[in-house]
Amino acid sequence: MKVAVLGCGRWGSFISWYADKIGHEVAMWGRAESKNYRRLLLDRTNDYLVLSSAVHLTNSVIEAVESAEMIFIAISAQELRGFANRLNDMELSNKTFVLCMKGLESESGKRLTQVFMEEMKSPVKVAIWVGPGHVQDFTNDIPNCMVIDSEDADLTKRIVDSLGSETIRFYYGHDLLGNEIGAAAKNVIGIAAGMLDGIGYASLKGALMARGTKEMARLVKTMGGDELTIYGLGHLGDYEATVFSKHSHNRRFGEAFAKKEPFEKLAEGVATAKALLRLSEQYGVELPICQAVDSVLSEDSDPKEQLVRLFMRPVKSENV
Amino acid sequence: MKVAVLGCGRWGSFISWYADKIGHEVAMWGRAESKNYRRLLLDRTNDYLVLSSAVHLTNSVIEAVESAEMIFIAISAQELRGFANRLNDMELSNKTFVLCMKGLESESGKRLTQVFMEEMKSPVKVAIWVGPGHVQDFTNDIPNCMVIDSEDADLTKRIVDSLGSETIRFYYGHDLLGNEIGAAAKNVIGIAAGMLDGIGYASLKGALMARGTKEMARLVKTMGGDELTIYGLGHLGDYEATVFSKHSHNRRFGEAFAKKEPFEKLAEGVATAKALLRLSEQYGVELPICQAVDSVLSEDSDPKEQLVRLFMRPVKSENV
Repeated sequence: MKVAVLGCGRWGSFISWYADKIGHEVAMWGRAESKNYRRLLLDRTNDYLVLSSAVHLTNSVIEAVESAEMIFIAISAQELRGFANRLNDMELSNKTFVLCMKGLESESGKRLTQVFMEEMKSPVKVAIWVGPGHVQDFTNDIPNCMVIDSEDADLTKRIVDSLGSETIRFYYGHDLLGNEIGAAAKNVIGIAAGMLDGIGYASLKGALMARGTKEMARLVKTMGGDELTIYGLGHLGDYEATVFSKHSHNRRFGEAFAKKEPFEKLAEGVATAKALLRLSEQYGVELPICQAVDSVLSEDSDPKEQLVRLFMRPVKSENV
Repeated sequence: MKVAVLGCGRWGSFISWYADKIGHEVAMWGRAESKNYRRLLLDRTNDYLVLSSAVHLTNSVIEAVESAEMIFIAISAQELRGFANRLNDMELSNKTFVLCMKGLESESGKRLTQVFMEEMKSPVKVAIWVGPGHVQDFTNDIPNCMVIDSEDADLTKRIVDSLGSETIRFYYGHDLLGNEIGAAAKNVIGIAAGMLDGIGYASLKGALMARGTKEMARLVKTMGGDELTIYGLGHLGDYEATVFSKHSHNRRFGEAFAKKEPFEKLAEGVATAKALLRLSEQYGVELPICQAVDSVLSEDSDPKEQLVRLFMRPVKSENV
């Protein structure tokens, strides 16, 4: 199948590598001025992988998209609305878009498929690809399980059939809302985990996992999703990579923040915490962990005080 | 309050240290010939802590128990039945027993409170103390959250009121069955996690968490408990300590087993896997992770083949 990958960062370049490896015809787009794109163009490599010569690199979105049947988008979540809007200049009818990002629109709290479909003027199909997996592992043949979800079970099945391999086993998702909220929210839990590492309280990550999943399950249920989705691959299943891994950008960001060390750029979970607090207000659901993370990040609260307060507040039932 | 602690291993000695610290009058029993007991008697210390002189050490169970209102038991789970039976020589009416172990009776699949109450001839009360927490952290003032559960909400509340502190925040459990199964089962997940470490597939621990909780939740629900208990502190909340920690005996055991390295003694999860497979049969619930762990341990199956098969089997829905 002809596919396009829009975005040439770590995950975009991996999707191109993977789609090529399992036999698809791949065109990958990057911005002409992007450092990642220029490096790939120069020697077809980055810190994670080597692209085969069969992957076509282009800085023209039109060229990448026009003949593709399935289009993967892996750009920064907060840039999706503007990017999607610019795609409307093309004929997109009946193309399938797979969003491969984990985030929520910070200003509105909207899910990425909502943002995307609000902008699209043609009748397109949209799905998401979420779940755990390190690029470094996949390129070393260490397999993992991931999830495809959409509102259309046939579409989900078609994408799973096109993408599954010995390296990635895809499960069918059945709750697009729950998987989008969950995939985004795990980055906030990752920041909280990093803060626990930063203050020397790593053993509270157990409580963080139990209370973090509970908090997100409550939100998803109130929003009309299935609370059990949070305990699936898209959220809980991504905790190894996010809460415990040295590679997790969000965890490292939280750790550096708590230690008052410099960090290169804001982690995606910073915007996601803002988005979740909007949903917390809209749906009347308390999100104490998100609140604590945002309060440390935005109001300069002391991370140790916030996190210890969170877990050590007066006794109560586990069910609340 | 006068309390007794029966067992002087890592966890028993910690309970004595902790109960003394928060103001209880503590008698701790150990077998006269036990290495742990002899070392504590000699210099009141072990690898984890120093006991205050206020903790009374004795090798007479009667002496420890007779004047105690609340009795904590922290011995090997498989020895509980015989030990409980021998307690019947004493007057125990209305005493409260708190079981501080994580296991199931291997031969029967029975929960430890079932085993205990089957043996008791006096009308006693029984509860459990489960959840995460490293002794090393608690003695360094790093707090954590744990769970007390029983079939009697007033009893649960009374124990929580007697034990809570700035170091341990206790939540009230509401599902004794779910918390007992969950606390025991986490050791099997710990062995599976160690096997993944041993074969170099640590990144599958994310999928292990998502699929492991799902498997145990299904069992608890079928047995009449609340499936959400598995996602609380007693099971999922203990994954940091069990699935990721260098200190976890079960994880280390699984890793050594997969690498064919020698190990000192069987981990508790070995017996628990057998017990869970009995429950699997009795209740007609498939437990593929327990099955795989037991098959590697008992039938000499290849851990890589078993575990990869487990996670990479043909595509299906997340809900199954």
